[in-house]
Parts: sequence; C-alpha cells; structure tokens
Amino acid sequence: MGKTTTMKVEIRFGDCDPAGIVFFPRYHRWMDAASLHFFMSCGVPPWHLQEQSTGIIGTPLLEHHARFVRSATYGEHLTISTCIQEWRRKVFIQKHTVTRGEELICESAETRAFCVRDAQDRRRIHAIAIPEDIHRLCE
Amino acid sequence: MGKTTTMKVEIRFGDCDPAGIVFFPRYHRWMDAASLHFFMSCGVPPWHLQEQSTGIIGTPLLEHHARFVRSATYGEHLTISTCIQEWRRKVFIQKHTVTRGEELICESAETRAFCVRDAQDRRRIHAIAIPEDIHRLCE
Amino acid sequence: MGKTTTMKVEIRFGDCDPAGIVFFPRYHRWMDAASLHFFMSCGVPPWHLQEQSTGIIGTPLLEHHARFVRSATYGEHLTISTCIQEWRRKVFIQKHTVTRGEELICESAETRAFCVRDAQDRRRIHAIAIPEDIHRLCE
Amino acid sequence: MGKTTTMKVEIRFGDCDPAGIVFFPRYHRWMDAASLHFFMSCGVPPWHLQEQSTGIIGTPLLEHHARFVRSATYGEHLTISTCIQEWRRKVFIQKHTVTRGEELICESAETRAFCVRDAQDRRRIHAIAIPEDIHRLCE
Repeated sequence: MGKTTTMKVEIRFGDCDPAGIVFFPRYHRWMDAASLHFFMSCGVPPWHLQEQSTGIIGTPLLEHHARFVRSATYGEHLTISTCIQEWRRKVFIQKHTVTRGEELICESAETRAFCVRDAQDRRRIHAIAIPEDIHRLCE
Repeated sequence: MGKTTTMKVEIRFGDCDPAGIVFFPRYHRWMDAASLHFFMSCGVPPWHLQEQSTGIIGTPLLEHHARFVRSATYGEHLTISTCIQEWRRKVFIQKHTVTRGEELICESAETRAFCVRDAQDRRRIHAIAIPEDIHRLCE
Repeated sequence: MGKTTTMKVEIRFGDCDPAGIVFFPRYHRWMDAASLHFFMSCGVPPWHLQEQSTGIIGTPLLEHHARFVRSATYGEHLTISTCIQEWRRKVFIQKHTVTRGEELICESAETRAFCVRDAQDRRRIHAIAIPEDIHRLCE
Repeated sequence: MGKTTTMKVEIRFGDCDPAGIVFFPRYHRWMDAASLHFFMSCGVPPWHLQEQSTGIIGTPLLEHHARFVRSATYGEHLTISTCIQEWRRKVFIQKHTVTRGEELICESAETRAFCVRDAQDRRRIHAIAIPEDIHRLCE
C-alpha cells in the first residue's frame, strides 16, 4: 500500500461561505497541499527544485472524484491523510481522507501525472512516465 | 434534458499557479458560480432571499467527479455550459462543461441537494426533498 | 502595548502565482486569520458564538496599509506576529508583521471595528463601541 | 492624468464570508486583475509574453493603502475604475475605485514596480526603471 502521511488544517473564517461552512473548493486546495506534502515527506524535492534538475513542474490533476459527507466550520481542526492507492505507467491515484476527530468530513481520489514543459512550446505541458526514483521513495 | 445556461470567465493572473496554468480548485469556484447562475437564470431567487422565504440556504455539494483535459492560462476566455442531467428525490446531478473556443478544458458532474438549517442546531444543515416549484422553473 | 500573538504559516504551491511568489491577497487572508487567532488566543469566543450571545459577527476591515518588502515562495515558513497598536472608541488598529526567520516579508496596519447586524435590515451591518470585556481580555 | 479603464465584477456566493459579505482579500484579487486589465487595455502585452521579450514578469505590489466604505454581497455588480496617479522612476501609483452603481464600496492606492528575474538567482526578482514604451502607452 505504501506510505501514508498526514497534514493538519485549522479552518479559518475566510475558508467559509455565507452558509457558515467550508466552501468546497477550499478542500481541494488543502488536498493539493497534502499531495505535495506527501511527496516532500517521502523525500521528493519540491517542484521548483525538480524543474531545474529533472524538468518536472509538478503533478497536475487529470481527474478526481470527491465525496463530501459532513460540513465543517471555522475554529475546527481537520486531519488530511494521504496515500497513493495505485501506480500506473504515466499516472497515479492519490487518496485523501479528511477527518475531524473520528468523523469523516470528505474524501477524494485524484488521478495525477508528473508533467514537464514542452520543448517546443514552453506554455504547453505533458505527462511523462513515472520516474522510478520518485516511485521508490514513496513506497 | 431541461435548460442549459452559459457563463463566461476571463482567466486572471491570480487564478494561475507557479506552473502558469489555472490552479484546479479555481475551476470548482467557477463551476459553483455557474451552478447558482443556472438557478438564477431559470428564475430561482438567490439563496439569501430563499433563506428568508423557504429556509433554503443553498445547494451544497455532496459529491463530484471532474476530468481535466487541457490546461489554460491567464488572458484566455472560457465558457461554462451548465445543465441538470438528472433529478432524484433529494438530490440532482448538475453537469458543467468548460470550453475554450471549440476545445474541451474540463468537465464535472456534481451531486447537490437543497439544504436548510436544522431547527434545533442552527449550525447543522440537512437536505430536503427537491422543491416542486424550483424543479419546474429549471425545465 | 498589550499582548502579541504569533501564528505560523507554511506556504503552499497554490498560494503562489505564475511568477512563483506568494500572490499578495493571500497575505491578507493569513493576516485575517491572524486577527481572529489573536482574539481567540486572548480568550475571546469565535464570532459564531459571539453572534448568539452579543450579536457581534466579527471585526470587518475598514482600512489597511500594507508594505511588501521581500517575496516568498512555497515550501517556506512564515511567522505572523499580531498585536493591537491602538484602541479608539469604535475602532482599533491591529498590526501584523510577517517574517521568514529574521527577514521581514511584509507588514500591515489594519483598522477594524466590532460589528453587529442591523435590527431592521439583517443584511446591513454597523460598528458598535468596543466592548469593555473584550478590550480587557486583549491587554 | 492619463487613461482610466473600467472592469465589471459580479459578486459570487463563494466570494462572501460567513457574515454574508465580500471577504476583503477578494477585493484585492479583483484590483490585481483590474491592474493587469488596465495595462492590456492600453496595449501592453500580458506578462507571459513580456517575459519572453523584455524579461518583465509583472508588476508586483510594493505597498498599498485601502479603505472599505460599504459592504457588498453576492448577486451584486461592481465596477472597478483604474488609473495611474503618478509615475516615478522605478514605481508607479495605481488607483482603483470600486463602486456599486453610484455608491463607493472601497478604494485602494497601490505602489507597484515592473520586475524581472535576477540573472544569477532565477527565484529572486528585482524592480527595473519604468520602461518608456509602456509609460507612453498608458498616457
């Protein structure tokens, strides 16, 4: 199954909407931070260093499927547990589980790929095969 | 199939991440705006008025499944087309398709419910059966 | 001078713009969180509890003056030090100083007021005289 | 005085906080967009093109002073009027005025500079003298 890392989040006033609950895109920001936190906890250098050495600019999201089970509000503390469920040739499935104490708040399965800039057109990016050394660090 | 509405978005510098492309939670903010825009275009009053008359505080997201096909950057214009794919008793599936000209950028199917505050505990919310009059306005 | 509290922030990928540095409105989000963190550290209940007891919905910003001295990027850690520089009858000046180790990144002086909802029109808010008990807790 | 440009904003649910009003960092996002909109309306190419030709990555904010006069909520429409109040050798003062119909909502004076990446350390940026051709386009 590989490693699982956790990241703590304290919900802030500005994370909440007029209904007084966390505005859902905010969970995705936190999950994105948890995704990078996972790699850095496994010893993978951050993307701005990767870009200089390997050309990798990050792991853009290709697809995700999220369920929101309970609402949460500011002042509360959340824990995001993150692991990689599956490695394929060019993509991997990263799973985030967000809890408040024992309660499940939401969860998401993200399909991501390691991407580099296109040599011809620097504004375009494309996926590469999953680097062996990164894969090893995460297991 | 019911109505389809469209909303235009111009991508701004601050919508983009260090890779120079739209940071994906931003698409969900736009889709959330497109969701409310759909209802208001169909003649449904905004939630702050609904809350006073019917108690409905909005249509929180219960689940969504999104695919990101191409990246986009600032200065570009996007169109979000929104419709309701399915009405169930307590939830509905709202579909957003984001395009740049003819190109598909991303798409999402959102499961949402009309929610009211709990009479006992105002900080809790729960789903109600889909109001008949709102359903009719959207077809 | 009164109390000074500190709040830690770890900069995330999604906090940064295409130039690779923190997008400045993000600093204001953190300062807003630091503002509430200051009051809660002083023993003032969060606004959603205040609203039920005293009607206070928060401390909206009336004015601020910020200087951005150095840029920062993701993976770095910031400390926000917060104190109240001055109490007037209806407003107070709250100062935030953001540092990375010994380096000053940015600072802001915010003029804020304790606000309640208007009795006639719940969508309007207005400032009240600074509550004595809150003032005392913060010194 | 030079040119004045205007940008329209429709306030969305997710732009508002638990008090039901626009969360103030959001105004700064809009002002930042209005800043770039000003330059592009004057015929200045966007930063991702500038970076390739002149090395300019944008106009980071050095300082700003903002006043928030009235609150606003979702469903409302705002107009942001933007002009440059003063040109100095390395910085300029850009003024944004945000109105809802005839009412002033907020305003800010921003001190910005045209910046390029450091030749030695690409992660550092520094201000350059204001390019003559850009200055001329904006008058």
